[in-house]
Amino acid sequence: MIGVAVVGYGYWGPNLVRNLWEVPGADLRWVCDLQTERLAGVRSRYPSVNITEDFDEILKDPKVDAVAISTPVASHYPLAMKALQAGKHVLVEKPMAASADKASRLVDEAARRNLVLAVDHTFIHTGAIKKMRELIDDVVGDLYYYDSVRINLGLFQSDVSVLWDLAVHDLSIMDFVLRERPVAVSATGTSHLPGKPEDIAYLTLHYQSNLIAHVHVNWLAPVKVRRTLVGGSRKMIVYDDLEPSEKIKVYDKGVVIDSRSPSRRNKEDQLRVGYRTGDMWAPQLDLGEALACELREFVSCVEHGKTPTADAMAGLRVVSILEAASKSLARGGAMVNLEGVKCLA
Amino acid sequence: MIGVAVVGYGYWGPNLVRNLWEVPGADLRWVCDLQTERLAGVRSRYPSVNITEDFDEILKDPKVDAVAISTPVASHYPLAMKALQAGKHVLVEKPMAASADKASRLVDEAARRNLVLAVDHTFIHTGAIKKMRELIDDVVGDLYYYDSVRINLGLFQSDVSVLWDLAVHDLSIMDFVLRERPVAVSATGTSHLPGKPEDIAYLTLHYQSNLIAHVHVNWLAPVKVRRTLVGGSRKMIVYDDLEPSEKIKVYDKGVVIDSRSPSRRNKEDQLRVGYRTGDMWAPQLDLGEALACELREFVSCVEHGKTPTADAMAGLRVVSILEAASKSLARGGAMVNLEGVKCLA
Amino acid sequence: MIGVAVVGYGYWGPNLVRNLWEVPGADLRWVCDLQTERLAGVRSRYPSVNITEDFDEILKDPKVDAVAISTPVASHYPLAMKALQAGKHVLVEKPMAASADKASRLVDEAARRNLVLAVDHTFIHTGAIKKMRELIDDVVGDLYYYDSVRINLGLFQSDVSVLWDLAVHDLSIMDFVLRERPVAVSATGTSHLPGKPEDIAYLTLHYQSNLIAHVHVNWLAPVKVRRTLVGGSRKMIVYDDLEPSEKIKVYDKGVVIDSRSPSRRNKEDQLRVGYRTGDMWAPQLDLGEALACELREFVSCVEHGKTPTADAMAGLRVVSILEAASKSLARGGAMVNLEGVKCLA
Amino acid sequence: MIGVAVVGYGYWGPNLVRNLWEVPGADLRWVCDLQTERLAGVRSRYPSVNITEDFDEILKDPKVDAVAISTPVASHYPLAMKALQAGKHVLVEKPMAASADKASRLVDEAARRNLVLAVDHTFIHTGAIKKMRELIDDVVGDLYYYDSVRINLGLFQSDVSVLWDLAVHDLSIMDFVLRERPVAVSATGTSHLPGKPEDIAYLTLHYQSNLIAHVHVNWLAPVKVRRTLVGGSRKMIVYDDLEPSEKIKVYDKGVVIDSRSPSRRNKEDQLRVGYRTGDMWAPQLDLGEALACELREFVSCVEHGKTPTADAMAGLRVVSILEAASKSLARGGAMVNLEGVKCLA
Repeated sequence: MIGVAVVGYGYWGPNLVRNLWEVPGADLRWVCDLQTERLAGVRSRYPSVNITEDFDEILKDPKVDAVAISTPVASHYPLAMKALQAGKHVLVEKPMAASADKASRLVDEAARRNLVLAVDHTFIHTGAIKKMRELIDDVVGDLYYYDSVRINLGLFQSDVSVLWDLAVHDLSIMDFVLRERPVAVSATGTSHLPGKPEDIAYLTLHYQSNLIAHVHVNWLAPVKVRRTLVGGSRKMIVYDDLEPSEKIKVYDKGVVIDSRSPSRRNKEDQLRVGYRTGDMWAPQLDLGEALACELREFVSCVEHGKTPTADAMAGLRVVSILEAASKSLARGGAMVNLEGVKCLA
Repeated sequence: MIGVAVVGYGYWGPNLVRNLWEVPGADLRWVCDLQTERLAGVRSRYPSVNITEDFDEILKDPKVDAVAISTPVASHYPLAMKALQAGKHVLVEKPMAASADKASRLVDEAARRNLVLAVDHTFIHTGAIKKMRELIDDVVGDLYYYDSVRINLGLFQSDVSVLWDLAVHDLSIMDFVLRERPVAVSATGTSHLPGKPEDIAYLTLHYQSNLIAHVHVNWLAPVKVRRTLVGGSRKMIVYDDLEPSEKIKVYDKGVVIDSRSPSRRNKEDQLRVGYRTGDMWAPQLDLGEALACELREFVSCVEHGKTPTADAMAGLRVVSILEAASKSLARGGAMVNLEGVKCLA
Repeated sequence: MIGVAVVGYGYWGPNLVRNLWEVPGADLRWVCDLQTERLAGVRSRYPSVNITEDFDEILKDPKVDAVAISTPVASHYPLAMKALQAGKHVLVEKPMAASADKASRLVDEAARRNLVLAVDHTFIHTGAIKKMRELIDDVVGDLYYYDSVRINLGLFQSDVSVLWDLAVHDLSIMDFVLRERPVAVSATGTSHLPGKPEDIAYLTLHYQSNLIAHVHVNWLAPVKVRRTLVGGSRKMIVYDDLEPSEKIKVYDKGVVIDSRSPSRRNKEDQLRVGYRTGDMWAPQLDLGEALACELREFVSCVEHGKTPTADAMAGLRVVSILEAASKSLARGGAMVNLEGVKCLA
Repeated sequence: MIGVAVVGYGYWGPNLVRNLWEVPGADLRWVCDLQTERLAGVRSRYPSVNITEDFDEILKDPKVDAVAISTPVASHYPLAMKALQAGKHVLVEKPMAASADKASRLVDEAARRNLVLAVDHTFIHTGAIKKMRELIDDVVGDLYYYDSVRINLGLFQSDVSVLWDLAVHDLSIMDFVLRERPVAVSATGTSHLPGKPEDIAYLTLHYQSNLIAHVHVNWLAPVKVRRTLVGGSRKMIVYDDLEPSEKIKVYDKGVVIDSRSPSRRNKEDQLRVGYRTGDMWAPQLDLGEALACELREFVSCVEHGKTPTADAMAGLRVVSILEAASKSLARGGAMVNLEGVKCLA
């Protein structure tokens, strides 16, 4: 049995607890939060789990092998570092840290101590994203673009901008499904509430190939949208996470270069590009809960010393891009090079 | 009666002809196209209209007061200039010219000769856009953002990029509905077919206030989307041009700053931003054909020496932004200042 | 404090328990189910609640004032009757009983003993249905039709047909929002699995006025639909329960009789009926959980001896229509008169 | 060349004329309408076509081989009969006649004279319906149900009810895609405007097998719906004619009888019915205009003496069901037997 503790019982922590409680091989020993009133809920639902406001108490428990951290972003680094230094394996909420430098130190610490350091990129464990990766590898052909819209009304964060709050999902998904790493990033955005971080942002990722990726995130939208388009030379994908079923649709559509004969003048020129329209297909998806799948993998990695799908390097790559995007945003969209970023090379 | 000639009978020209034919006060005298076979259709449908391949023949006809030009972009400038120099009033297809410099010369020529120079920004004559302008003026409050997605499969143009082909619609709409002019532009995009212009592009417009505007245009999308979001302090709008009815929806949604008491630590901080959700409302729209409305206005402006809604300056402003956007795109998204652009000041 | 017991902890029972646990003034004392393994979940979540497999144990507890019954339909009557006879107030799952005769006996027993007998018509406590009633009373005008589609794949019931399982929702809603009672019913439908009850059914309700109501229920549909149309002389409503927000849309659409002049022959005759199309409007709805609202009302009715919104008579009316519909279905759609049905008079 | 005349140039006639004009092998000689002002449009667009108000003039022209009739329903019989008696082949608008008796006489007259008598069931020539027939034959398995909703605001007809105006489309489609004929029909409906025919109706078709078909038609709906569900033992289809593409979706969904072991009491019983959910697939459809395809077939049938897809018998079957449905509607939904109807046997 792997002894596990959960730190942070706010928005996401209860999901970690509920799922860890069911993972075979996991022994949920502690839940820690600075706000005592939150812990009351733990006691009534999981009477056998210990509760505490003191993080150190957890680290001192020799039966705790691993710590899952779901606290505000600023505390990810100090808590994860302390846990690693105490010899605990760590699963940390995304984004892994508030800066690439801090994320990088966590990577090093975990490597030095030979500990599992996983980052909670939940989406990559959904049936939809696993299918999307398969489709991109097998049927989409040369990748043309990846375009995601992730907008809704709220939930405003005080500590991080909409980029670090919402675009982190898209970057973690792209890190998983695209086999190429971006070489530069441009971002624009703005804040509308005095003293608050950006609430709307647009992010372009540039690649060595002619792939282009774009993410639109917005906390001030009247409608909720969670839609990604992926275009390739052979197929195109629409991934709509709000669809109750048929989240992934594969279109046999595209452009064909018509090399027939010499063209004629004017409008006729355009006809040399033709279009292909065929069937649409919505594959059946694995409907298992992503977090359950992720936590089973984490516990198994701890047990057998394996590397999780979203390992510390994935967390670092995502944070590095977010950092570069924030820099670009501050410069009005100027391209910020990622080529010097070691983890992305 | 105002004597009118239509130049260019390809994709859009037949719509001009069909509508001009019905405009009271207009006498459609000529249709001109370089391709004789196209003109055959004119003869059978409108036997009283003269057809010609020779543009000069039209200019020589003293009964022609005005010329409507719907030819490829590159020819807008030479044809419009020649027509103005021949003393004809001009309506020119959008974008008004292939460069800001050329557009500017057309503006000057028309002013010098006291001729009407209108640009065919068709969308601003639709019921939906007229209603949107009203709503922005009256109910939206402080403007936060304007976000448009205009994507579909094809129609590839050889002579202009997707920016000049599709974003021109959004820029002409924004020019009409927003009372503030942009101060800078950032754009990214790429081409996927060898030797062809950009087929996907993202455009951010920056404003003096904290308004931000963004346009996503794409010729390679598996689905057709025509959707604009407008966010303000008091109301939010969704404009979906593909909806058969209810194209405009007004949401009584927004953010309210909750200034209650001192905040508590952590997550609680976030609660100081609250949300307002109220009714949604889809106003009934004027369903008249936009082009008919536009052409009636053009003929009336020629008759009475008035300025059309989309005048030469509007055409110039839109072309100036397109030109700056192309420059930014070539520089990977770097912000290109529009403050020196006289027409936008 | 009102002492409450929940009987039946299968599909719906846990919702009753979870909500009763939070109702001020309610003391949840017992949960009863014949399957011991289900009760294990109760013990871990609600340690202070007693569990039992023996219904009589509950009835013997003098601190139990009211019993909520969520068991299979066939057992509603014996359990509710026993509870009433033991002097307990009762809330019973819909349909109230397996026949109008049994439902009627429950009505009488409760009346005789002056006990509250409520039926769990949950939908009428949703914000959407409360708003629909308001709209029908205030803005719809003369009612023309009520049309509901409630289809999806599964959940097959063994004991009752799709009419008793799904149409019961629509009938309970209509009983609440329409101020007129039906005078006859016609139903068609069929079963596709050997030995199973009807899995698809169509139900028409006839009214004294020219209102017509229709319900389509189906357990074998590839898509889930929950959509009701209400047409009236002044406004029309679309209620789509699957919409995350904007569940209720009010259309200012309708028919106007054009009494202009004498008509001309042929097609022209049709023009005497004109159409009115105006704004659409989606009112903000109360988002409280319906069941919580219903249970608070039930407890309050028990405490103060009041009549609940969905009282025993409402339950009886719904069961009477279901019974008549089953009869009509067996006769291939022949109209079954409801005029003799006392509760509907 | 087959000489053709079109009779009736109101709502649908112009489509016949436009398409016949392009059919290879057809010589469009006449357009006839009682209203002279309508014919003006014909003269300007098709100067070579003769126009007349006198039907007999057409019949006297020996170069007219075939007559296409698109006049109000009441005149279908007298005009088609007269044309057949004059030795002309006939294509008649749906419904073929105002009663089964009249339709039957047309069938006989055409047979006796060995003339082609086709009925304009346009939908069966669309790519969507041709694909649906293929799917029903090849992949759907045993048919469970056919359910269609065809509703919108208007267009009120004075001469026929909504059944004869809208349900005729569904009946003609079913006649084409289903290989089984109905044995009985039940219908309900009502009228809401004084002196006008039914504006809302519900139609159930009963079959020898356990297939059930249902059609909902309504002229008073605030939204337009054109949606058909087809359920079978192996696949299910959703046909949404308002979808711009993907009109046909095929769902690999269904019910599986789980014959495992003895069941346990209560709820467990239900588990013996299980569900299968697999991929969804939208086949690419033939996008040709249905009417063009139908008219090419009609002209070819006249030329080579072949039988059209929608022949006089198909027209008669549809009218027979409409007549029975009207009878059932008048009786409040009572089942009207179709077994005695010869054409359906």
